Amino acid sequence: MPRTSVPPQPVATMTAAQLERRRRVLAAVVGLVAAGRLDDVGMKEVAERSGVALGTIYRYFASRDHLAAAALVEWAASLDGDAAAPAVDAPEADGDEGGGPGDAMSDRLVAILRRAVRAYERQPAFARLLILAATSTDPFAGECYAQMGTSVYATLGTALGDLDPADRRRVLDVVGAVWYQAMIEWVNGRKSVDQVYEAVESAARLVLAGYER
Amino acid sequence: MPRTSVPPQPVATMTAAQLERRRRVLAAVVGLVAAGRLDDVGMKEVAERSGVALGTIYRYFASRDHLAAAALVEWAASLDGDAAAPAVDAPEADGDEGGGPGDAMSDRLVAILRRAVRAYERQPAFARLLILAATSTDPFAGECYAQMGTSVYATLGTALGDLDPADRRRVLDVVGAVWYQAMIEWVNGRKSVDQVYEAVESAARLVLAGYER
Repeated sequence: MPRTSVPPQPVATMTAAQLERRRRVLAAVVGLVAAGRLDDVGMKEVAERSGVALGTIYRYFASRDHLAAAALVEWAASLDGDAAAPAVDAPEADGDEGGGPGDAMSDRLVAILRRAVRAYERQPAFARLLILAATSTDPFAGECYAQMGTSVYATLGTALGDLDPADRRRVLDVVGAVWYQAMIEWVNGRKSVDQVYEAVESAARLVLAGYER
Repeated sequence: MPRTSVPPQPVATMTAAQLERRRRVLAAVVGLVAAGRLDDVGMKEVAERSGVALGTIYRYFASRDHLAAAALVEWAASLDGDAAAPAVDAPEADGDEGGGPGDAMSDRLVAILRRAVRAYERQPAFARLLILAATSTDPFAGECYAQMGTSVYATLGTALGDLDPADRRRVLDVVGAVWYQAMIEWVNGRKSVDQVYEAVESAARLVLAGYER
């Protein structure tokens, strides 16, 4: 994708019609990624599938990385309700995940983390997008990644109501780092998805041990 | 670097003369990386600087990633003595790092972590090598990365003598993940080096809080 020195139009300044076009573009990218087409998502195909002109896409997104990272944010936002829902509203087949309001903080956190990992397990292509967004040198892709972080922290934070905000942040910084590294190793074939579950669960219980004793 | 289907000669099968040539090759790469020449380290230049034939280098290393990862292992090994030394043997200018045998486990761990971060602070090019080794799809680079992990765990583990091996491993898995993520963000310009120190120290204290109460 050609880079220009003109920054992309900020979302906050978009009209309703522009936001709708932006949404259609991102839906097209999410569809292509979900279909396993991460590596060959071409801008022209995105324009065709979304019915949005190529020039418009270039005005909304600074680069292919930016577009991909924005699509990841869109996809993650579509999961949020599910990931944040208490287990009783979304019973799991194995039925032993817990995470209800009466459970210990660590059980609630582990339950939410397991649902987040499961979303990536079902759609591994988005895990690759996550790593792309995290490591991209494009500052707009970086902004999308930071925005995801804020949203993920808010969701995970619902499990940690007993902690003050500073402690909550410390706990989530650590759990988030473990989750991120486990994802990279999973995507690179160095960890199984079961090892990802184990790593995040172990980390969550360990960092909360000092608060739950 | 051209890839062949022939795997590189395993280090364990090398003669003393071969090990010496391998050492010279890696020393040349370490020198080039330390001089800030990470991106344009060419195989021919490595051959010239080391005085080892290009064909020999290709027999010892499967790819450029493998060579770079092996150089990282070499560099890290050269630091180990320093990083593992108690603070009293390597006094710091600010003098408040502690980490002596009489200190709390978390103080000892933080002291070793600070020295490890400082090594990368002094030679940031090796932080980029670390990330390259961690994310490379070359299995031989992956092996080098795993070997580094074993060595780093051994060094950090000296601070955690009070814990049984399973707990030590859990603690180091978490601290290692935080350290790794902080390094990536530092290399990508999203974190200052001070934030790297803060992140690893905060994580170390948090994961040990449950053991030190």
